Amino acid sequence: MCDLVVTENGSVVGTEKGRIYVKLHDEELTTFPSESLESITLMSNSTVTTYLIKQCLTKNIPILYITQNGKYLGGYRGVTTNKTSLQRAQCELFNTEFSLNFAKKIVTSKIKNQISLLYRHKSCDDVSTDIESMNNLKKRILFCDSIDAVRGYEGRAAAVYFKGLSRLSGEFAFDCRSRRPPLDPFNSMLCFGYSILYNLFYSLIETKGLNPFFGFCHADGDGHASLASDLMEEWRPLIVDSSVLSLIRKKMILKEQFTKAEDGGVYLNKDAIKTFRAYIQNKLFQKNHTVESVEEKKSYFDFISHQVSTLIRAILQKDFSLFE
Amino acid sequence: MCDLVVTENGSVVGTEKGRIYVKLHDEELTTFPSESLESITLMSNSTVTTYLIKQCLTKNIPILYITQNGKYLGGYRGVTTNKTSLQRAQCELFNTEFSLNFAKKIVTSKIKNQISLLYRHKSCDDVSTDIESMNNLKKRILFCDSIDAVRGYEGRAAAVYFKGLSRLSGEFAFDCRSRRPPLDPFNSMLCFGYSILYNLFYSLIETKGLNPFFGFCHADGDGHASLASDLMEEWRPLIVDSSVLSLIRKKMILKEQFTKAEDGGVYLNKDAIKTFRAYIQNKLFQKNHTVESVEEKKSYFDFISHQVSTLIRAILQKDFSLFE
Repeated sequence: MCDLVVTENGSVVGTEKGRIYVKLHDEELTTFPSESLESITLMSNSTVTTYLIKQCLTKNIPILYITQNGKYLGGYRGVTTNKTSLQRAQCELFNTEFSLNFAKKIVTSKIKNQISLLYRHKSCDDVSTDIESMNNLKKRILFCDSIDAVRGYEGRAAAVYFKGLSRLSGEFAFDCRSRRPPLDPFNSMLCFGYSILYNLFYSLIETKGLNPFFGFCHADGDGHASLASDLMEEWRPLIVDSSVLSLIRKKMILKEQFTKAEDGGVYLNKDAIKTFRAYIQNKLFQKNHTVESVEEKKSYFDFISHQVSTLIRAILQKDFSLFE
Repeated sequence: MCDLVVTENGSVVGTEKGRIYVKLHDEELTTFPSESLESITLMSNSTVTTYLIKQCLTKNIPILYITQNGKYLGGYRGVTTNKTSLQRAQCELFNTEFSLNFAKKIVTSKIKNQISLLYRHKSCDDVSTDIESMNNLKKRILFCDSIDAVRGYEGRAAAVYFKGLSRLSGEFAFDCRSRRPPLDPFNSMLCFGYSILYNLFYSLIETKGLNPFFGFCHADGDGHASLASDLMEEWRPLIVDSSVLSLIRKKMILKEQFTKAEDGGVYLNKDAIKTFRAYIQNKLFQKNHTVESVEEKKSYFDFISHQVSTLIRAILQKDFSLFE
């Protein structure tokens, strides 16, 4: 399956004889069978032919527009994916026991994955005190009786975690988390990676018929797809943070590959974006992971997609225990 | 203000030096200042430049794709228009007293407007019995205690109304309402006109931050923007039905301008589509109507836009009486 990402300005994406092509000044950059197209993400001033747009609308293939810095601008939306009664049920479960259980599960899984990451890189530096204190915070979440309380512990765990992460990041070490804009190369990579994940969840949620704006755990915000933010939480350490550490260690991205913008933000240059994107895509879609119950290997994306499906089942039956 | 509709295949819509242009084979078909662009509707295989798409996404200007027959395929959607707490409130009011009052108001207004139309054309044929029976049905709606009951009376009124309308339509007379597909030229024009209205409401609702899929009166249906269907009800006779009668009377559209498709459906040809669209657009946007309280003249679109704004106020305050 192919999630096409177009980064070259002036490219044209179209379809001909059952194949998708990307052309730049009449030169064919890539081509593959139409059936394998799953999404198109435009990071450049490129064109999708209207014929292909209409095909995508009919087949519910999303076409997303994001800036070079990973900011989601919006995208095409066909009307057929919308599942109205599901979205009504989703809306009803806001601020209920379901929401609280959801928040607890998401946040404890996130802290668990943060601990795993620190643990895996432990030899580089001693992070065992951090791990212990995060474990304690994680346990307390189970006794929370409000989402605010859950978020309080999450914030405290995050502060410990990012300090630990900074100590593991060599010359990329940073003072604290910064975003809008990110103030150093490490934070810049985190922000960019999280926005890739956000876009992925956004389009997956919409494609499966849920409403991306009705979250359970994050506060409502106009134009903020809080369900995407909710669901990506636990995947951030596994997919983004670990990729950033690997890219640094393997010297695949260097400190020189960042530029400082007028807003004071530090951003990846074009080559770094390419490397970073490819690495994350690979991480997402490589079938590396075995599951006890099944023989075949699964990708992170398979797990994510399955998780969203179980959320839909849980919402429809108003039974949180169905969410895996 | 400009709602741009592009019907010529191969056109390119773009922007340059603060102006929007439509070009066909490098010849400029039209141009106007960027600030006046309100929406772009593509009925043809035409291209919008990516630069303009991004501008539209940022400024929340919708770009809609519809087929030659008026079927809505989908469109671009920026993320910033979504008003989450408003949509939660909207969802909550489903199946409540608010919904019932909404249904009563919408349906009685619709029947009132249907009666006006028959009345205005009364000289052509005697429709006074029809009017009387519709008036009776309208009165009974006020005493309904369920939306189903409201819809029952609406259906009975519609049957009487369309029989009356058929008698007024000369050589375009038809047996009964048909759609998906429309089986005669008159029904074909109605279907096409209603889909123009549906698209207009769809984009207006979305632009103002409501959820088009959460209706009050029409049943939920996946991929069906039931709030658009709800709100357009009362405007159908005023904008579409009356236009169809006028176009027939003025011989601006002739019976020869229709073709029969493989699905048995009867559709307007390209010239008829142009005439029809222009007539409806004119009807919608001409500032012909005086309002008692204000000096300036208003267009139907002004009224519609105001109505959606009052619905938002009514939803936020959970007070139906604020809906005008």
